[in-house]
Amino acid sequence: MNKQQLIATIRQRKSFLCVGLDSDIQKIPSFLLQTEDPVFEFNRRIIDATRDYCVAYKLNTAFYESLGADGWRIMDKTFHYIGKSHFTIADAKRGDIGNTCDMYARAFFEQMQCNAITLSPYMGRDSVESFLKYPEKFSIVLGLTSNPSAKDFQYLLLQDDKMLYKHIIQTAATWGTSDNMMFVVGATRAEWLREIRAITPNHFLLVPGVGAQGGSLEEVVKYGMNEEVGLLVNSSRAIIYASSDNDFDTRAAEEAAKLQQEMMQWI
Amino acid sequence: MNKQQLIATIRQRKSFLCVGLDSDIQKIPSFLLQTEDPVFEFNRRIIDATRDYCVAYKLNTAFYESLGADGWRIMDKTFHYIGKSHFTIADAKRGDIGNTCDMYARAFFEQMQCNAITLSPYMGRDSVESFLKYPEKFSIVLGLTSNPSAKDFQYLLLQDDKMLYKHIIQTAATWGTSDNMMFVVGATRAEWLREIRAITPNHFLLVPGVGAQGGSLEEVVKYGMNEEVGLLVNSSRAIIYASSDNDFDTRAAEEAAKLQQEMMQWI
Repeated sequence: MNKQQLIATIRQRKSFLCVGLDSDIQKIPSFLLQTEDPVFEFNRRIIDATRDYCVAYKLNTAFYESLGADGWRIMDKTFHYIGKSHFTIADAKRGDIGNTCDMYARAFFEQMQCNAITLSPYMGRDSVESFLKYPEKFSIVLGLTSNPSAKDFQYLLLQDDKMLYKHIIQTAATWGTSDNMMFVVGATRAEWLREIRAITPNHFLLVPGVGAQGGSLEEVVKYGMNEEVGLLVNSSRAIIYASSDNDFDTRAAEEAAKLQQEMMQWI
Repeated sequence: MNKQQLIATIRQRKSFLCVGLDSDIQKIPSFLLQTEDPVFEFNRRIIDATRDYCVAYKLNTAFYESLGADGWRIMDKTFHYIGKSHFTIADAKRGDIGNTCDMYARAFFEQMQCNAITLSPYMGRDSVESFLKYPEKFSIVLGLTSNPSAKDFQYLLLQDDKMLYKHIIQTAATWGTSDNMMFVVGATRAEWLREIRAITPNHFLLVPGVGAQGGSLEEVVKYGMNEEVGLLVNSSRAIIYASSDNDFDTRAAEEAAKLQQEMMQWI
């Protein structure tokens, strides 16, 4: 799915919601543990229930890796189950030297067939270049994250009085285009989105932190939306763990629908 | 293996060599492709051949992930095959919010039973804390990396005229102790090791970049060694791909032995 197709899907579904499948075997409803493939079964039911309300799914690789090789199989099976109707993101936060990134690109773009992968910028351009070689795939670079200790380094002031995260977004934006790059910008500092929009007017922003982490959707839209929408707002725990009972999928659908209802007023 | 055991192993084996198992199915000797489990077979023979010359093995997760779930199985099998005689490192460069890092810690410290994992510091303290909870395990935080584009962000000057990488090492060092943290410091800037030693006199440094990436072992020792040795010098491609023929394991042993011979003069 390329940028134009993503925008068309957003307009058609009137949603820029990304559902985060942070599926933890210790948190899924216990009755699922009797099924043959519990975590996949959880994902399958969440996907079936939320498909109409979202445009993207994001799988946090850590949750699958915690299950070993079997988790990796479930991640792969889930990405293939989602299919081509939605934009798929491997939330992997990888970042390494070139020959290593080539391998990560093989893993996520060729094997898993994801549309996008999140990347950590600390090692510089080498961390991103391997991924940009793939047409119609996206590198989503960490800019400003939503966690409390984002401030430890991301807020550091450089000699031109610019904060590090802003310098990183500005620099990384020159490595690709808005057709193959996006940025992660946490919702917990929504007012900073205005400044980020000034330096990257055309890039899509993947915005975590709405819901469990306390960010406001309205603020994100106010400061971050552009003419092409330009936002994918992620919600994980608030949707997938809305209920820990038999009705977890219908409750997940309700939570996703609520966000989609709110989103449609701006599209 | 805790820090004191690592030091004792280094003194006994007269080596501070870490062998990097960046095992790429497209580069291993072709005759191995006829074996039942080619990449594991490659690793097994490299490990058997180099055991006596090194104190650590580092598995670069990307190379295994490029093979999907099967690669994850091979990584796990390899870590267990190495066993307790060597310090084991998952070169994973992970980094995320706390609840996600808990999952990575489960994957690498509980399932794979590695001694250490490499971590990217961009998201701050949250990226490291989950891992520090495990006794006798190490978080190896990226400080100064050996790749050309390390300069993109790591060399940025802060307002106190300090480079970013140095500020990161100094800050991260306060999160744990030299008993549960190490830093990655590339050999390609060996003279900078002197300054890094001044701020972290007691931490072990994991030093990639000797060999294929052009760093000098002598320089690394000159500027980086402390009274407890304090160095793990990694070599990957120069050892594991010393030959692409039947003799790949004996040639790997020769290359590892050469480095060990050089190292023993300083121990």
